[in-house]
Amino acid sequence: MQYEPDRQFLSKLSALKKDVAAYLENFLVKKHPESLYAPIQYTMSGDGKRLRPALLLLAAEALGGARSCSMPAAVGVELLHNFTLVHDDIMDKDDTRRGRPTVHQKWDTDVALLAGDGLVGLAYAALLRSESEKLPQIMRIFTDGIIEVCEGQALDREFEARDFVEMQDYLEMIGKKTACLLRMCTEIGGLVARGSEEHILALRRFGENLGMAFQIQDDLLDITADEKKLGKDFGSDVKQKKKTYMYIHAMQHGSKAQVAELQEIYSKSMITEQDILRVRSLFEQIGTLSETGKAVRSYIEKAESSLALLSEDVRTQDLHEFLRMILFRKA
Amino acid sequence: MQYEPDRQFLSKLSALKKDVAAYLENFLVKKHPESLYAPIQYTMSGDGKRLRPALLLLAAEALGGARSCSMPAAVGVELLHNFTLVHDDIMDKDDTRRGRPTVHQKWDTDVALLAGDGLVGLAYAALLRSESEKLPQIMRIFTDGIIEVCEGQALDREFEARDFVEMQDYLEMIGKKTACLLRMCTEIGGLVARGSEEHILALRRFGENLGMAFQIQDDLLDITADEKKLGKDFGSDVKQKKKTYMYIHAMQHGSKAQVAELQEIYSKSMITEQDILRVRSLFEQIGTLSETGKAVRSYIEKAESSLALLSEDVRTQDLHEFLRMILFRKA
Repeated sequence: MQYEPDRQFLSKLSALKKDVAAYLENFLVKKHPESLYAPIQYTMSGDGKRLRPALLLLAAEALGGARSCSMPAAVGVELLHNFTLVHDDIMDKDDTRRGRPTVHQKWDTDVALLAGDGLVGLAYAALLRSESEKLPQIMRIFTDGIIEVCEGQALDREFEARDFVEMQDYLEMIGKKTACLLRMCTEIGGLVARGSEEHILALRRFGENLGMAFQIQDDLLDITADEKKLGKDFGSDVKQKKKTYMYIHAMQHGSKAQVAELQEIYSKSMITEQDILRVRSLFEQIGTLSETGKAVRSYIEKAESSLALLSEDVRTQDLHEFLRMILFRKA
Repeated sequence: MQYEPDRQFLSKLSALKKDVAAYLENFLVKKHPESLYAPIQYTMSGDGKRLRPALLLLAAEALGGARSCSMPAAVGVELLHNFTLVHDDIMDKDDTRRGRPTVHQKWDTDVALLAGDGLVGLAYAALLRSESEKLPQIMRIFTDGIIEVCEGQALDREFEARDFVEMQDYLEMIGKKTACLLRMCTEIGGLVARGSEEHILALRRFGENLGMAFQIQDDLLDITADEKKLGKDFGSDVKQKKKTYMYIHAMQHGSKAQVAELQEIYSKSMITEQDILRVRSLFEQIGTLSETGKAVRSYIEKAESSLALLSEDVRTQDLHEFLRMILFRKA
């Protein structure tokens, strides 16, 4: 798939990002005490892609919602996303994020723990600035999302300790850990824009399927990225013994010998680059890479057809562009 | 002050506690995944006093609110309180709570971190079950409370590292860390009971002053508890170099020699029982103990007079009893 980003869309995205940054800066200005807000401001000033607030703003705009009405919720979702990053980095013992030390590295674990807690409160505070008669429903979706993200993180950690995971369980996990937040963005975007029930349901399905495609694609890129990109992050899922879509597929469809070889590599205490290349070659032989690509395309089709359910007066072009941007990338 | 608990009140409290336990059990039943919900259920099944939900239910009842209407918010506040306990225990490296291992001791820090995050989500989920047209306002109070509790915890940790803290800063810290949650209970109790603005403001002030009295009393009891009670917890604030009401008062009002002696003890790396008894004796000589008792009584009077602002049809007796129960205790 050859993807040429639409220039007009890219400049719109960059304008959205600036608006989000401006709202955030104002929202977090001159807060006290320092030991709570310095790490929060540090986290929020990182070079994030702001995909989630952009998605929420675009979903609202598709239904004719003004940006000023959807901005508080967009910022709320971004604060919530960063809460999960700060706490996940503690659990995963990650030292860097977006090229900078993680909060627990720059300060310490206690500071990062408390900063994450503060981010949840601030996320709700931003969301509660939304002037919508649907606020209780929006709050319920947001709250269910937080609970699901915690459940997804717990499942992910449980799976790392297991030898095998069923595909169905994997799909449940990524649904909660990744797709849930994107679904939340499109659904809340529809709600703040006062969309009809049918439109909101269609947007919700779009976000959900977009999220599933995004995560499986992420698994795939981890091991199929260009050779040039071979580096620290190449094959990190194999190194961490993650039960990805590919691993589960290969375990189910490989020959006895292939499965045994895969298991042998995954039981090693040190995974070399040679091991990762061997895993990739096994995934190729078993047909896992092409099947995983098919799965991504199937979720993309579902996402696209959800948009097709929206009536003609809904401007879905930016949402299509958003999907293309995050899914037709090569790395 | 000789305190004889009212028997009728005590049996009412015990009934409230049972109702809260039943609602909680139903609320947390059969949740999956295990690695998230087992520590949450463990935390919530501890022998907690359930003071906060009781206070919320009593405040609502004083204004004629049915228990079924106030129960979701009461359970929400209890879940929120337990979130703070689980995360505070990680930061304070406390091994036991209410006679049982803390979550991070029984499992590990990552599990406790995630369980605390899950508790915040569940707290909101319980609160959102409240059927009240004031829900957005209730959510704002709850959210401001979470942010304030994080700020209070951050201040508390900042103060531990400082040599001296102004009384005003100490009062801000306990206002955020302790009084805030009790104020939230009485205010939300008033809101779910559809109280008038004046009544809700009076209840809010009652909770706030009750909380201030409660925390300063807690500081005081830490070092004045009966000799028999001398044990692991006696003088724990001195051991942790906490800048309590007493410490700040003594530093401000002691003679040069007394201040120097206090500072010397607080700069030791190991605090002995002898040191703690010496600190208590210094506090006594300086007049700190009696002044601290006066401060507690002053907040109690403010709390009592807030109740007096409520109109005559408000049944405030249980709230008076609640205050007596938690503040006229000896340890």
